[in-house]
Amino acid sequence: MLNFSREKYLKVTGGAIGLREEIEKVADKVFEKGFKNIFLIGSGGAVATFYPFEYMINSTSTIPAYAEIAAELVLQNNKQLTEESLVILSSLSGTTEETVAAAKYCKQLGATTIGLTGEYNQPLADTVDYPLVNFAENDFASDSNQLVLYQLIFKLMNKNGDFPRYEEFAAQLEILPEKLIEAKEKFEPKAENFAVTYKDEPYHMVVGSGTTWGRAYSYAMCVLEEMQWIKTKSIHAAEFFHGTLEIVEEDTSMLLLKGQDDTRPLMERVERFAEKYTKKLTVIDTAEYELAGISEEFRKYLSPIVTSTLLQRLSVHLEDKRNHNLEIRRYYRTVAY
Amino acid sequence: MLNFSREKYLKVTGGAIGLREEIEKVADKVFEKGFKNIFLIGSGGAVATFYPFEYMINSTSTIPAYAEIAAELVLQNNKQLTEESLVILSSLSGTTEETVAAAKYCKQLGATTIGLTGEYNQPLADTVDYPLVNFAENDFASDSNQLVLYQLIFKLMNKNGDFPRYEEFAAQLEILPEKLIEAKEKFEPKAENFAVTYKDEPYHMVVGSGTTWGRAYSYAMCVLEEMQWIKTKSIHAAEFFHGTLEIVEEDTSMLLLKGQDDTRPLMERVERFAEKYTKKLTVIDTAEYELAGISEEFRKYLSPIVTSTLLQRLSVHLEDKRNHNLEIRRYYRTVAY
Repeated sequence: MLNFSREKYLKVTGGAIGLREEIEKVADKVFEKGFKNIFLIGSGGAVATFYPFEYMINSTSTIPAYAEIAAELVLQNNKQLTEESLVILSSLSGTTEETVAAAKYCKQLGATTIGLTGEYNQPLADTVDYPLVNFAENDFASDSNQLVLYQLIFKLMNKNGDFPRYEEFAAQLEILPEKLIEAKEKFEPKAENFAVTYKDEPYHMVVGSGTTWGRAYSYAMCVLEEMQWIKTKSIHAAEFFHGTLEIVEEDTSMLLLKGQDDTRPLMERVERFAEKYTKKLTVIDTAEYELAGISEEFRKYLSPIVTSTLLQRLSVHLEDKRNHNLEIRRYYRTVAY
Repeated sequence: MLNFSREKYLKVTGGAIGLREEIEKVADKVFEKGFKNIFLIGSGGAVATFYPFEYMINSTSTIPAYAEIAAELVLQNNKQLTEESLVILSSLSGTTEETVAAAKYCKQLGATTIGLTGEYNQPLADTVDYPLVNFAENDFASDSNQLVLYQLIFKLMNKNGDFPRYEEFAAQLEILPEKLIEAKEKFEPKAENFAVTYKDEPYHMVVGSGTTWGRAYSYAMCVLEEMQWIKTKSIHAAEFFHGTLEIVEEDTSMLLLKGQDDTRPLMERVERFAEKYTKKLTVIDTAEYELAGISEEFRKYLSPIVTSTLLQRLSVHLEDKRNHNLEIRRYYRTVAY
């Protein structure tokens, strides 16, 4: 695969899986202390990674979960955030200003804080009660983060009596990175073809629902806009029919992220519409990837990581065919604002 | 003002204000029965109108609030939605399929349901426990809905001990429609100028935060996309700096909806950025409108309705200058899908 190091990918994802013992100890401790709700806090791609977990907690567990934008949370005076909250924050570099400020804010309120990050000795790890650190380069950070979250969140739900099959789930996560590489390999020709076909496309509509909505939101914002400077609209499949559909013409590029959770019918409806009204339809469907050894009933939870792992391949090919390096920024950490 | 009937506007908003006694009776009844959280459910513009109220409840009250997309909610199996939930749904026509389905779903779960709608003898009013009906044409529906919600939600918060000044607030709502007309009048030249300047603009970025985020989301989707077939990106002010900023060039149209809640600094940051990097910046700032007789401390709650009332004027002028009727649809209720 183009610009892909199997070794590096397995090292990063293996690092995340390798945290299991530490993660479960943290889960035991925070559960013993007790909490009445979970806040998932980040900025940009980090908060977007939390959206599927907010969805999964709310549909699996009786513990209320709230994914919140760091910079807004510190201003809102959210009354649900108290010393009885469990707060999980995420920043790869550990230096994202707003997220570090949110961590300090939550600590001041007396909440219990866990920080997911790639770096020790940086502000996030130094601020939170429980840092969970796994080094990850930018391109694999999302998969790494998700693997940590699958262990942490599902262990917490297990302890709460909401997810009895945690042991089996966690054991299957160990083989998941190899299966995700197989999925990437299967997707590779499609990724290349997308990049060749759409390299000059000025606008993409990216659609998701349920556990893929956060992935649609972040792929549009953090990759197409931020890393490729292409205009996008990310839109939830259910909301698509209440406005955004009207701008679809036969040359409108639509990228559909179809997962396997209970909201799949919402994506199927958009797909049927798109098949009729645009010639530029791309569907990424997690159901097309085998993931041998993963139980059928866990696939709905894994839709976001399967989606994000495939989308990484799209990014690599867009970078290549568009001759636009994924690391270039006009403004972010380049100019002051 | 172009295509504006003062009489009609006062009739519709007066109808909403006139529901006060009925609304408060409903609030008394549901409060007496008791509930542990509030779900605010709609589709498209209706759910977007709820977003500011979700934000305001969570920053003012200890009652947890969740704004949810109707079509997703009925599939998600959200564990927070129980017979102890108070559910508020909204559909102007009373026929929005997904919203009616959600009302039935919530009733089956045993939740208490309130329906905001413009029509009696339609499915929404016929399904919910408490219909609150105020006839409103499409262009004034959002203001009507918000006036009903200010009375209902703030009365509920008052009864919960979170908002002691409800009587004063409700009394001021009575003079608000006149003040909103004055605001529209002041905004009129700016609205016309926007439409003249940007009538051929193919793309707008619409930015909001806190209580204006829902307005940014819906103006982009329900007016610019649905009613004018113009591409948009709606983006939260805090999230703007984590991706979307990279596509800003000197000819990128940015429409900023600046309110007066605690997240105003987030909008100011985007404004400072936009002033530097684009020549096409429009700021709608609720602070520029006097609203004589409205207490300073209530203005943060009223930012969404001030914003939406001004944006209606933008729509009327876009329709006129672009020669594109706001009622035309390519697909919605035109073709089957």
